Amino acid sequence: MRFRFSHVSIVVPDIEAAARTLGEKYGLRVGERMLNAEQGVRLAYVDLGNAKIELMEPSRPDSPVAKFLERNPRGGIHHFSLSVESIEQSTQVLGGKDVRILGSGKAQYNVAGERIAFIHPADFLGALVELEEHPANEAMRSQ
Amino acid sequence: MRFRFSHVSIVVPDIEAAARTLGEKYGLRVGERMLNAEQGVRLAYVDLGNAKIELMEPSRPDSPVAKFLERNPRGGIHHFSLSVESIEQSTQVLGGKDVRILGSGKAQYNVAGERIAFIHPADFLGALVELEEHPANEAMRSQ
Repeated sequence: MRFRFSHVSIVVPDIEAAARTLGEKYGLRVGERMLNAEQGVRLAYVDLGNAKIELMEPSRPDSPVAKFLERNPRGGIHHFSLSVESIEQSTQVLGGKDVRILGSGKAQYNVAGERIAFIHPADFLGALVELEEHPANEAMRSQ
Repeated sequence: MRFRFSHVSIVVPDIEAAARTLGEKYGLRVGERMLNAEQGVRLAYVDLGNAKIELMEPSRPDSPVAKFLERNPRGGIHHFSLSVESIEQSTQVLGGKDVRILGSGKAQYNVAGERIAFIHPADFLGALVELEEHPANEAMRSQ
């Protein structure tokens, strides 16, 4: 089990306004907007070369991230994501060490079709941590 | 002004307990503990190769991160950090775009002696973002 850093994720009330802010003030380019209907979020990424910043906006009122916005109306850091070579193997190894994986146990996917899983924050120092499967982890990330 | 991802920072109530958790459950090695007396934090880093995870524990009761722990007793994600080639130039450019830099305006340093600055969360989508000066930004980070 080897981890690489994938992205930090910020929940925002308005992804278009967020993209404008990042462009005008920081010169950062926000990529195409995508929808993850299953997770109830509209998403976009800023690629910094060695890692990304993810922007997430709720796509429906009962979106899991809508609750986060109620507590943090202007937005804020929601989670960060680590890439692993295999979600299957990682969640199995972590399960054996009493690390809880959120959700029903059924496979979840991100907008890129990559398998993902979320670790219970109580089992990672209070931080919500996503695992993302990048099978070509080493090759992709060391470029 | 070019940004690279440096680290995500987690505030923890006990850095030794946090290091044990990361080691035993995730096989992650936490580096040497350091003290930043000025910032009032004890720190350590997990190096993931392309980016780092920073652990911070308050080193005194009036530490800025002690308040964060009052609101989040078990810990949580506090900020993330982007590296820039020049703090001086970056804060000047950002100031010209109405991005507020926290603090007195006097130079701040991290434990590695690198110049740092914090952006007001209201000016970065609700996220607390640190800028770190890595003069050899490109060369260091692309390895």
